[in-house]
Amino acid sequence: MKLFSSVNDVKDVPVLVASALQLKQNPYAHQHLGKNKTLSLVFLNPSLRTRMSTQKAAMNLGMNVIVLNIDKEGWALELRDNVIMNGTTVEHIREAAGVMGEYSDIIGVRSFPGLKDREEDYSETIFNKFVEFCKVPVVSLESATCHPLQSLADLVTIEELKTTARPKVVLTWAPHIKALPQAVPNSFAEWMRRADVDFTIAHPAGYELSTDFTNGAAITHDQDEAIKDADFIYVKNWSAYEPYGSVTGGNEDWMLTNDKLEAVAPNAKVMHCLPVRRDLELSSEILDGPRSIVIHEAGNRVWAAQAVLKQMLEAL
Amino acid sequence: MKLFSSVNDVKDVPVLVASALQLKQNPYAHQHLGKNKTLSLVFLNPSLRTRMSTQKAAMNLGMNVIVLNIDKEGWALELRDNVIMNGTTVEHIREAAGVMGEYSDIIGVRSFPGLKDREEDYSETIFNKFVEFCKVPVVSLESATCHPLQSLADLVTIEELKTTARPKVVLTWAPHIKALPQAVPNSFAEWMRRADVDFTIAHPAGYELSTDFTNGAAITHDQDEAIKDADFIYVKNWSAYEPYGSVTGGNEDWMLTNDKLEAVAPNAKVMHCLPVRRDLELSSEILDGPRSIVIHEAGNRVWAAQAVLKQMLEAL
Amino acid sequence: MKLFSSVNDVKDVPVLVASALQLKQNPYAHQHLGKNKTLSLVFLNPSLRTRMSTQKAAMNLGMNVIVLNIDKEGWALELRDNVIMNGTTVEHIREAAGVMGEYSDIIGVRSFPGLKDREEDYSETIFNKFVEFCKVPVVSLESATCHPLQSLADLVTIEELKTTARPKVVLTWAPHIKALPQAVPNSFAEWMRRADVDFTIAHPAGYELSTDFTNGAAITHDQDEAIKDADFIYVKNWSAYEPYGSVTGGNEDWMLTNDKLEAVAPNAKVMHCLPVRRDLELSSEILDGPRSIVIHEAGNRVWAAQAVLKQMLEAL
Repeated sequence: MKLFSSVNDVKDVPVLVASALQLKQNPYAHQHLGKNKTLSLVFLNPSLRTRMSTQKAAMNLGMNVIVLNIDKEGWALELRDNVIMNGTTVEHIREAAGVMGEYSDIIGVRSFPGLKDREEDYSETIFNKFVEFCKVPVVSLESATCHPLQSLADLVTIEELKTTARPKVVLTWAPHIKALPQAVPNSFAEWMRRADVDFTIAHPAGYELSTDFTNGAAITHDQDEAIKDADFIYVKNWSAYEPYGSVTGGNEDWMLTNDKLEAVAPNAKVMHCLPVRRDLELSSEILDGPRSIVIHEAGNRVWAAQAVLKQMLEAL
Repeated sequence: MKLFSSVNDVKDVPVLVASALQLKQNPYAHQHLGKNKTLSLVFLNPSLRTRMSTQKAAMNLGMNVIVLNIDKEGWALELRDNVIMNGTTVEHIREAAGVMGEYSDIIGVRSFPGLKDREEDYSETIFNKFVEFCKVPVVSLESATCHPLQSLADLVTIEELKTTARPKVVLTWAPHIKALPQAVPNSFAEWMRRADVDFTIAHPAGYELSTDFTNGAAITHDQDEAIKDADFIYVKNWSAYEPYGSVTGGNEDWMLTNDKLEAVAPNAKVMHCLPVRRDLELSSEILDGPRSIVIHEAGNRVWAAQAVLKQMLEAL
Repeated sequence: MKLFSSVNDVKDVPVLVASALQLKQNPYAHQHLGKNKTLSLVFLNPSLRTRMSTQKAAMNLGMNVIVLNIDKEGWALELRDNVIMNGTTVEHIREAAGVMGEYSDIIGVRSFPGLKDREEDYSETIFNKFVEFCKVPVVSLESATCHPLQSLADLVTIEELKTTARPKVVLTWAPHIKALPQAVPNSFAEWMRRADVDFTIAHPAGYELSTDFTNGAAITHDQDEAIKDADFIYVKNWSAYEPYGSVTGGNEDWMLTNDKLEAVAPNAKVMHCLPVRRDLELSSEILDGPRSIVIHEAGNRVWAAQAVLKQMLEAL
């Protein structure tokens, strides 16, 4: 694998999921692959789970890791082409990415969307420039529109914990006070469509995701109907795709509670990519109770990252 | 050892001190213990010595280390329970700690006190929540009320450099312009009470420490009397315990000088946990002269941390 | 080697350059040298290339690396002597350096000039205090007046890519909007004077560098004349040495373009230390075209750093 930016970069999804679960059983068996290889993790935005789990995955594989909070520790990056750099940016992404490629065998990049210009965000210009100019394999640590390491970990978690051959999986919108990216729901939708699951998306009117990601999924505005008899409920807020980045407020009743679950989905396991705002997005009673698998799910981020890095190391 | 938050977590203090001094002689003999084990160091506050010495100790033991400045590199943490997270905090400590436990075999946490609400600080809610929710062994990298790695290094230093079986050790308050925590003097007091030393505390009226830590120690408001014939003088500022976090100003004459030492304690070795404000807390003439052992003492932070981590690794 | 702060610390420049090129061919052959040795990289200023390439070099040699953004992650440093520290600085460089020496076998330090007080900057007080008080070998990661790891990499690059025994090398000033240090041109000049090259410096009137660094080099205010038939053109802005740190504005026509090169130096390879402001310092058409070797040059930073660290490890 030379690029891991979406599910479309994966040749065989079930094989990758199986590899992650095997690595979980035997984490240190492939340290020869990473010996004297360097993974550089480049952050333009905050990160807790991705930062730690990807470091851990790389170290499990025997790799060296360099972490760079590029805007804080390096230089303010210019991301646009064809500008005279006489303002506040000091280094162009073309040079920054090119140089990082010289020091790295694999690079991970995190770069969030601006949520102002949909065309710019959805063309993934920043992430794609990194890929183009660094000239080494690149793992997305969440880009403007996708978070594939999260979705792989989510699918690994579902595979690991499912009690039926074809579980019912529901992605439900949740309330928030800020405009959040669509990266996690986009990715979750496109990964679920490649998995052997019964998949439904529920959100209030106005929060339709791009059909590039949801195409073929069942979509409803009725949360109760959607989650009925669900095996896994994935809770996540996102801002509107149209008008892009908008949030209408309201819809507080979309916050999942134990009452709702007991009424229609008593056996559902509840997932969230984290960070989660308690009692705004998701109730504390669920997070602190037996239905929540969010910590377990976050733990699986290691094995998802390790499976991807392993395939990249094998292809070097 | 599953927890290192105060001297009370140590089964046998002399054994731990002896272990630190043995590791100083032979730092790399136990790398099998740390192989493929991950120490995560989580900072909510600045750190130089603790950050570097604990990394070094872990690497000496063959461990992998992940460093996280959580509020800057991760997400703004919510530390309170039972709040709707509709403000500026993005992730609750319950999830953050839980997730970090998934990626770590041992976690170190630094979290300073607010110095506003004594009950909150002295109940160690932040540190204790980390311990509760991360579910792996935790080392305090300085909490609201204790700095045990510092005090263990201090005791190691005294054991190493003492020239008499039962040295006289004095903890003396020093002037400052800011309100500082009581963590270092609290810990130093409780560790000295467990050591074979003649221990005295000197401070101006109004700077009494909590008796939970000083209980049984000799306490005086007369610095000259206290330091008379001392073998080790530990210099440190702290703010008042009652009214909590207050500083009265004045007491500039409490700054230790060579004149004072020559008059009553000519053979005393001078200690400080660092950082130290020169010529405010402690005179440059002492810091730059032969009586100061502050750099040597800071060096011993490695062996203190390594002794603690070694016991934790052995108990995994 | 105990100190690497300028070309004057190098016993035999050609041997060091040859060592770097050998390490490029065989990066992992000397890991026994670095085993259980710690390199601490201390940054008072931003860094991308130096940060990453020096980490990579150290890991290639089997070393452990600790990275410290000291003012952000540690404590605000006091750099002056003989001041009562009752202001905003929390730790004196004397203690900070001394303590870091306790945890490190080799230390790298980056500290930029203030560009206000020439005598202070050119006496290298901050860097020299680190060296004095840490008591372990020190590598400059760019000091107030020199950037020797950059210049060594530059010379390695010229040696590697030259097509004639004694290439013509030109250092040319470039436009900028800010006052930049003289460290890179100072170092480049003193390294070129020790190399077997035909060396010329071109800059507008008023941008004369200190003769301590340029002594003996050909200097001209005519860029076209200078670059005529050049094999390597090193592009870099700097502020004036006299009046110190000033920038006059103007001189935009000093930005190198393909037209200029095609007219007088069609075979020149173009170098820059990076970061570079596109279309202000250097045209995009050159950076994106075949004449630019800036990414390759940045890649050679690894081998320059590794050659220096190797000599230091051998002398421990």
